[in-house]
Amino acid sequence: MGDACGVGPEIITRLYREAAAAGCFVVGDVGVMRRAAGCTGGLMPVARIDTAKSVFDVPPNCIPVLQVEGLPEGLSRVPFGRIDARAGLAAARSIEHAAALALRGEVCAIVTAPIHKEALAAAGVAFPGHTEMLQALAVPPGQSPPAVRMMLANEELRVVLVTIHQSLRSAIDAVTFDAVLETLRIAHRASAGWGVGSPRMAVAGLNPHAGEGGLFGDEEQRIIAPAIAAARAEGINASGPYAPDTVFMRARHTRSHPGEFDIVIAMTHDHGLIPVKYLGVDHGVNVTLGLPFVRTSPDHGTAFDKAGTGTADPSSMAAALAMAKRLSKAAVGALPMEDAHTSPQSR
Amino acid sequence: MGDACGVGPEIITRLYREAAAAGCFVVGDVGVMRRAAGCTGGLMPVARIDTAKSVFDVPPNCIPVLQVEGLPEGLSRVPFGRIDARAGLAAARSIEHAAALALRGEVCAIVTAPIHKEALAAAGVAFPGHTEMLQALAVPPGQSPPAVRMMLANEELRVVLVTIHQSLRSAIDAVTFDAVLETLRIAHRASAGWGVGSPRMAVAGLNPHAGEGGLFGDEEQRIIAPAIAAARAEGINASGPYAPDTVFMRARHTRSHPGEFDIVIAMTHDHGLIPVKYLGVDHGVNVTLGLPFVRTSPDHGTAFDKAGTGTADPSSMAAALAMAKRLSKAAVGALPMEDAHTSPQSR
Repeated sequence: MGDACGVGPEIITRLYREAAAAGCFVVGDVGVMRRAAGCTGGLMPVARIDTAKSVFDVPPNCIPVLQVEGLPEGLSRVPFGRIDARAGLAAARSIEHAAALALRGEVCAIVTAPIHKEALAAAGVAFPGHTEMLQALAVPPGQSPPAVRMMLANEELRVVLVTIHQSLRSAIDAVTFDAVLETLRIAHRASAGWGVGSPRMAVAGLNPHAGEGGLFGDEEQRIIAPAIAAARAEGINASGPYAPDTVFMRARHTRSHPGEFDIVIAMTHDHGLIPVKYLGVDHGVNVTLGLPFVRTSPDHGTAFDKAGTGTADPSSMAAALAMAKRLSKAAVGALPMEDAHTSPQSR
Repeated sequence: MGDACGVGPEIITRLYREAAAAGCFVVGDVGVMRRAAGCTGGLMPVARIDTAKSVFDVPPNCIPVLQVEGLPEGLSRVPFGRIDARAGLAAARSIEHAAALALRGEVCAIVTAPIHKEALAAAGVAFPGHTEMLQALAVPPGQSPPAVRMMLANEELRVVLVTIHQSLRSAIDAVTFDAVLETLRIAHRASAGWGVGSPRMAVAGLNPHAGEGGLFGDEEQRIIAPAIAAARAEGINASGPYAPDTVFMRARHTRSHPGEFDIVIAMTHDHGLIPVKYLGVDHGVNVTLGLPFVRTSPDHGTAFDKAGTGTADPSSMAAALAMAKRLSKAAVGALPMEDAHTSPQSR
């Protein structure tokens, strides 16, 4: 459901209106989703369900919502576009519930609507975002969480990031042999789960011209090239390091320009996200690699300035949902939801 | 002319074949250009000229070459695709000659074909590339060279770089208040020369999310924002710092997507070049800002693997030439070359 003060609930509603969410249900609050349906015009009933499999009993043109118990009072009346502890808490509880369903195998993927870091903090939730929360939920208490990596993907490009939310200076220090090798392993394993046997993975350098033979920095020679060699020794189809300014262009895959690589590994947040976002954030999907279940999310935030207006663009959420269906179908085999309903990516 | 062992001479030849170089002449060697004409198929005579203005006496479908005196023996027989000191020296002498013409006002712009850093070094030329050489040539001996900045531009995006050819770690240290402010001043002055009065300049941050309020690095707060404020106090229309991952997308200008900004200032080589190159290097043009004359170059190198085959793509060189004409026309008023010949950008 995401943060009830943001655009999450209403973009979900629009996906049901466009019949793009068939076979999916919302984990969250019936009242919040009723309000969201009201924001987006026209009649759109909301049906409360109590188990995952009940989704198939809900008629089309109706939003199935699995009600999470114990959510805060007044949740369906929180003001739009503000940080609200009640919305933060409800978002966190919904994520916990969805993760539990995924770990029990009752759902094959989770698509997370945008949440707000400060609303989580206001609710006393100790995690800065979805990814960290899902990492912690993915293991029994006391065990160390699985290593995960963020992949950003659109129709043209798939990028997996070695470092994400830290200063550029500290990101350079975090580009270690282990971090690069682990990224390659995670991307390789995830691809196998999607049915891509041995993806061509290009590793971008850190420095201009990938260090220009050591003239512009030595991380490529000291760290990145050895990590690629180690990955290759494990049977991973990795190559590089390539100059960051051209590797994304080379990997870009269009009808007229077949990409040279299936996945690009980027050392920093912005090396990787600048090209994925350049053609527009509408179609970008965030995929968390390394979790024991498929998890995708749209490539935008709560957009508080648009919340409640019904005008937010649902394209990225639709792309996230289509991607989750595609990945989970490959990962666990064809499920009833894929057979019984029209898949949005085949439209 | 560029390096005679690379693709420079032959892509120049192709521009004359396509009538895209009307009003322009080559500074270099007649023999090298004759060989290049032979590589690109069909008859294409080369005419030696001795002064800039003689270009207007050369018939169409003929390549006017201003012969530089004292070039090495055997230059027109240097092997393709190799580093050769003779080619490096000839390239350097040609640049010196062209710069002298530009400083005397005999030409209104210089378009440089690709040279090879190692060939320059083999010839004992102390500069790593065009830009540094032109900087030094632009001032009388003993004076300090003008501050310059690299701009990369295509039809959609113009990016000016605060730092270029250095390690990412050292680039972070080179992002200073003075460097950012000077970049804004140079871009502002250059734009005035092109007839763009007060360009909307977006300044990209250095860190993810432009530092996320200091959580992911403080360079935005300590350095970049104060430099923007200082530039604004001088009447420069600068704003930011913006998140690097979305500012280029926001500035991207197409028919269906008018850009929010005219120029983006990027802190690092790859933040700036990844988006400019993402759609293909064919149309990218390198413009040196801060010199006392217009100078552009294609966005690729000597491509030794293709030299002598006549197959190298001249698109970027054509774009560099069109850009030079456009900028110099704006800078110095309409010149005979623009009036007497068809301008390639109006095709």
